[in-house]
Amino acid sequence: MMQKGALNVEKIRKDFPILKRKVMGGKPLVYLDNAATTQKPLAVIDAIHDYYTNYNSNIHRAVHQLAEEATKAYEDTRVKIAKFINARSTDEIIFTRNTTEAINLVAYSWGRANIKKDDRIVITEIEHHSNIVPWQILTQEKGAKLEYIGVGDDGYLKMHEYKKYLDSGKVKLVSVSHMSNVLGTITPINEIIKMAHEKGIPVLVDGAQSVPHMPVDVQKMDCEFMAFSAHKMLGPTGVGVLYVKRELLEKMPPFMGGGDMIKEVHKYETRYNDLPYKFEGGTPNIADVIGFAAAIDYLEKIGMDRVREHEIDITKYALDRVAQVKGVTIYGPMNAIDRGGVVSFNIGDIHPHDLATIMNDHGVAIRSGHHCAQVLMERLDVAATSRASFYIYNTKEEVDVFIEALSEARRLFKI
Amino acid sequence: MMQKGALNVEKIRKDFPILKRKVMGGKPLVYLDNAATTQKPLAVIDAIHDYYTNYNSNIHRAVHQLAEEATKAYEDTRVKIAKFINARSTDEIIFTRNTTEAINLVAYSWGRANIKKDDRIVITEIEHHSNIVPWQILTQEKGAKLEYIGVGDDGYLKMHEYKKYLDSGKVKLVSVSHMSNVLGTITPINEIIKMAHEKGIPVLVDGAQSVPHMPVDVQKMDCEFMAFSAHKMLGPTGVGVLYVKRELLEKMPPFMGGGDMIKEVHKYETRYNDLPYKFEGGTPNIADVIGFAAAIDYLEKIGMDRVREHEIDITKYALDRVAQVKGVTIYGPMNAIDRGGVVSFNIGDIHPHDLATIMNDHGVAIRSGHHCAQVLMERLDVAATSRASFYIYNTKEEVDVFIEALSEARRLFKI
Repeated sequence: MMQKGALNVEKIRKDFPILKRKVMGGKPLVYLDNAATTQKPLAVIDAIHDYYTNYNSNIHRAVHQLAEEATKAYEDTRVKIAKFINARSTDEIIFTRNTTEAINLVAYSWGRANIKKDDRIVITEIEHHSNIVPWQILTQEKGAKLEYIGVGDDGYLKMHEYKKYLDSGKVKLVSVSHMSNVLGTITPINEIIKMAHEKGIPVLVDGAQSVPHMPVDVQKMDCEFMAFSAHKMLGPTGVGVLYVKRELLEKMPPFMGGGDMIKEVHKYETRYNDLPYKFEGGTPNIADVIGFAAAIDYLEKIGMDRVREHEIDITKYALDRVAQVKGVTIYGPMNAIDRGGVVSFNIGDIHPHDLATIMNDHGVAIRSGHHCAQVLMERLDVAATSRASFYIYNTKEEVDVFIEALSEARRLFKI
Repeated sequence: MMQKGALNVEKIRKDFPILKRKVMGGKPLVYLDNAATTQKPLAVIDAIHDYYTNYNSNIHRAVHQLAEEATKAYEDTRVKIAKFINARSTDEIIFTRNTTEAINLVAYSWGRANIKKDDRIVITEIEHHSNIVPWQILTQEKGAKLEYIGVGDDGYLKMHEYKKYLDSGKVKLVSVSHMSNVLGTITPINEIIKMAHEKGIPVLVDGAQSVPHMPVDVQKMDCEFMAFSAHKMLGPTGVGVLYVKRELLEKMPPFMGGGDMIKEVHKYETRYNDLPYKFEGGTPNIADVIGFAAAIDYLEKIGMDRVREHEIDITKYALDRVAQVKGVTIYGPMNAIDRGGVVSFNIGDIHPHDLATIMNDHGVAIRSGHHCAQVLMERLDVAATSRASFYIYNTKEEVDVFIEALSEARRLFKI
């Protein structure tokens, strides 16, 4: 049953064994690297343990009891995911390794079949490398062109540039992040999709940073493709999801050839399997798909509205406190409603790696670097930033520890 | 330290919690579906549990303590694998999802760059779909041709056909299974590679069924590519390995674009990362790669020579006993030295699925169907076979239970 009111964070923390961890010779772990990967509740760890201890088997092609149990649990996850993002059908849910593979699947299968010379693909300056490099490779191969919607100094997309690209009449795909992993910017995805659809252009949504953090409804959004990863939403590493609208998926050629994605293989021709299996060649990551179900259950019990509210609350608090640090530059929108739970910043000319190292000395895990978003780094005219990112188990007290560590860094670097 | 003498199977069985499982209302589990996937020792299950409980983090790009611990454990696995198959360098070891992805990576990256119209790719009639379909897709795309080395009624490859194909001067790649997942046939891989190399042709070895079951040395074998999966050798699902000789890997274009496989991303061009990272886009399956290390440790402690000896022993016993069952047809070489631990068979006109269902009633997990080898099924002129397959924890007593269940099936079907 879904809970109500503010999150009981102290209760939630008890479900995450790693949060008891001490680091750097006894410091309590303050884990603020959730945009990179989240921690896992015991329910997820136990689901994997239970699978290997009690019913590990290959799936889909055997009649023995273990295989039936494993197949059922694997397919039950697909049902949960379809429901979680409100897909029309489990046929539209494809398991991949991660968001990156999900986007590459679209680039290889849909992209090779549909993108021609001089076509244009529109992305943005805030994209993660996983939503840039596959399109670079594709456009270079096809003689097509990649266009970038710019981002303003305020962290918002320049929608007039988008409109201009669409008006060219040459755009064949729009592929946009729902939330920036650096700026936190939540993009106006409904408007982006509506504008593309007016020109009959399909849209891929990189949901790696949004699906874990807010309610997402693919039917309401009406996107053609959406990609996200289990490990950023309490689930195991090694599982990604690609959602594809059925009418497109039905026409897509296969990506990886192999077992389980076929109906009949003859020497020189093959009849491919039904959806979604046609796109899942070989033995899948059975244990972790099953583990992912426990993560979805955990999030649904909390309710994604409340997950989002907690993040707005803690992000607002963090933005306010970081903004008070002398010499700080914060990147992205300053309004917590317009952004997710990531705060990227620089302090004076302290190198982000040095800053993250000092944070680590205090037990605070933040990330520093280009965050796989070098096009955005160029736009911001920085080599790197520091980034703190939050999830359901983070507290304002942890933000305080982080701020205290920042002050210590400033003292050390005499800023 | 490596152990000596025959395996202490009873001791080994204690390490596998699932082997205590009762199925079908109280029958002890007799798991003979190891060619599909093997069970996992507690050491592997615990390694995954330990990772998520104590040091789960994204890797390669952060300075905090969890990230350093996770990165070290992930990369330590690569070192272990390189050593396990005797690769020259960890740069030659790429983590994939499974064998299927490993072969597809070669087909997409090396294949698209090197296979041209009218070129030929040689495979065999015993291949798994994962070593057929990627080459069908590639040859169809390029207007190239796929050639099949036939298999004799005795289960051995027709090497004169291979020689004939090589003599055509048009072969650009040979891709052959080291061991058939249906017939058990161990192919003359050294001879196959030597013959290809005399013509300057690279060879891919599908090691999915061999690496888990016998000592494999890629330098001695001298193959250009080798693919295998963790889950068939005590490791977790979701991890495959592609070995590629460095001189080829250096020239291969990237497969999946995204984070971690790049050095520098600009708007319209990208500099790719060093080997092997160039081929590992996105957050990898960190937990399961780390779990795989525990599987390698477990196998190395036993010693692959002894694993192989145990399988010869139990396969010989099983072949002898199955051969005595009235109305049975066994597929593949009858000499246990020439085959791995799989025994495929049919009994009269009992449908393999019916047979497997009866086996399941007795707690015996075998596989029935086409085993992802429909080209071989066509060659054998059957729709399906039943298959029992063995690993280090299987006993002759389990073979006896299986044989007893077979007799019961014969009685039921009045054969």
